[in-house]
Amino acid sequence: MVGNGIEAFGLRDDAAVLDLPAAGPLLASVDSVVEGVHVDLALCSPGDVGWKALMGALSDLAAMGAAPLAALVALCVPGGTGEGELAAGVMAGVAEAAAATGCAVVGGDVSGASELAVAVTVLGTVEDGGPPPVPRAGARPGDVVLVTGPCGGSAAGLRELRAGRGDGAAVAAYRRPLARLREGELARRAGAHAMIDISDGLALDLHRLADASGVGFALDRVPVASDATEDEALGGGEDYELVVVCAARGAAALDESCADAGLRRPVRIGSVLDDPAVRLLDGVALQRLGWQHRVG
Amino acid sequence: MVGNGIEAFGLRDDAAVLDLPAAGPLLASVDSVVEGVHVDLALCSPGDVGWKALMGALSDLAAMGAAPLAALVALCVPGGTGEGELAAGVMAGVAEAAAATGCAVVGGDVSGASELAVAVTVLGTVEDGGPPPVPRAGARPGDVVLVTGPCGGSAAGLRELRAGRGDGAAVAAYRRPLARLREGELARRAGAHAMIDISDGLALDLHRLADASGVGFALDRVPVASDATEDEALGGGEDYELVVVCAARGAAALDESCADAGLRRPVRIGSVLDDPAVRLLDGVALQRLGWQHRVG
Repeated sequence: MVGNGIEAFGLRDDAAVLDLPAAGPLLASVDSVVEGVHVDLALCSPGDVGWKALMGALSDLAAMGAAPLAALVALCVPGGTGEGELAAGVMAGVAEAAAATGCAVVGGDVSGASELAVAVTVLGTVEDGGPPPVPRAGARPGDVVLVTGPCGGSAAGLRELRAGRGDGAAVAAYRRPLARLREGELARRAGAHAMIDISDGLALDLHRLADASGVGFALDRVPVASDATEDEALGGGEDYELVVVCAARGAAALDESCADAGLRRPVRIGSVLDDPAVRLLDGVALQRLGWQHRVG
Repeated sequence: MVGNGIEAFGLRDDAAVLDLPAAGPLLASVDSVVEGVHVDLALCSPGDVGWKALMGALSDLAAMGAAPLAALVALCVPGGTGEGELAAGVMAGVAEAAAATGCAVVGGDVSGASELAVAVTVLGTVEDGGPPPVPRAGARPGDVVLVTGPCGGSAAGLRELRAGRGDGAAVAAYRRPLARLREGELARRAGAHAMIDISDGLALDLHRLADASGVGFALDRVPVASDATEDEALGGGEDYELVVVCAARGAAALDESCADAGLRRPVRIGSVLDDPAVRLLDGVALQRLGWQHRVG
């Protein structure tokens, strides 16, 4: 048994049966990790791939302020020597990430393929009677823009691995990122107007949030992870920190609830503008920096 | 909008939000279709692949007696010329299957890869206060074994396509199979004790149901699809008919409710035995005939 009482991976029936606590919104998202596109097995282990696949999917729940309920994993593994070991390694990483977040793995499918690919579907909930899930499209002029932590660590870790250096905090940030599930829930309860997770880069993901909301923004700082460059912080991706947009009062409430929970306090990086054509960092137009592909 | 009021594919937010009708069991399953393993694009179109992927996943819900609620699709497509066309073709087939079954496609992810792969996660429900989802493990000695229709049509269609013949009912059964969702729901309401869908072969899947239930069986007939051989009916797979195990009274109720609904009446093929070592067809031990891989 993992997490919230739902049976762990190892299906007896054609479908898993989840007893939901209450009627209300159910959140669902799917995310894939493919060898040669998103990951390189020369730079991370099969367990890292499983961990990254589940955390990347869970980050989508975090960005709506939802709590994880369950995950289903579709695994494609190349045939031949080591096939079983590779599949077991990936699933062990999935299980570690599931245990770290209280998410049950309730279903799976393993298939042959010519390269490793992991597609993870996650289901999540928000508490009955609480604020609804937070969209991308809710940012309002005058809101403040926060980020839950420094950015660029994952990209710095990938750079270090490619240079043959295999330790340090940046490498851990790349191999074992953390979805900011508790921060997302606290932001929703603090009345956040809009959120997005930083999967492709702070700049690109913030532009997407602004596109969805029909607003502009002015940033006056970017928190850069140690060992990372500002370019990596803006365009590196896979940080899975959250961009949170809320009224000043909401920002104060979130700061307090993060402190109470022993979490890092979100950093104020700028504010929302009325004109959607104005997207600035330190008074200069901010490019849509971000990764389309993670390897290559 | 497709199906039951849930927003169709085309995500605006990080996760889809589904408003569930009531608390209670939620069913979830994932299934993959990979080119070169399960399908061959020389023998079926991208739309066929999408259709087969969603129907194969929905069949797992049918086998529990659940109604489809929503699907999420992870699509891997090879890069290069025709990449967009291939992805659009697969998604069109998914959408057709979704429309045919009242299942909303609420989420998706598209990634590069070296071969086409489609992983579909489906969510389903049973009505509040109704009988619970039907497991594999509920068969009891003395129960009757039913199948919802003749088997082997899909395998016969694949054989015909390989021989260069591209029309006929068997080819349609291979390219555009139907999940028996209504039959599964009626069987659950008629008090079915156990069910499984025929994805890998009537013989293999019936053995699996018997394994899960700790019982044996004696079959006295196998309904064979026109154009199919008995071997194809027993071991062909991808028919997506349902094996339904129930008491005699349940079988009568199911027969009546299928007739009332204008559905084909299930065929009685045998009965459940106490001894799990005894697995017979016409008095002879039935091998575990079935496909492990669909192509090659």
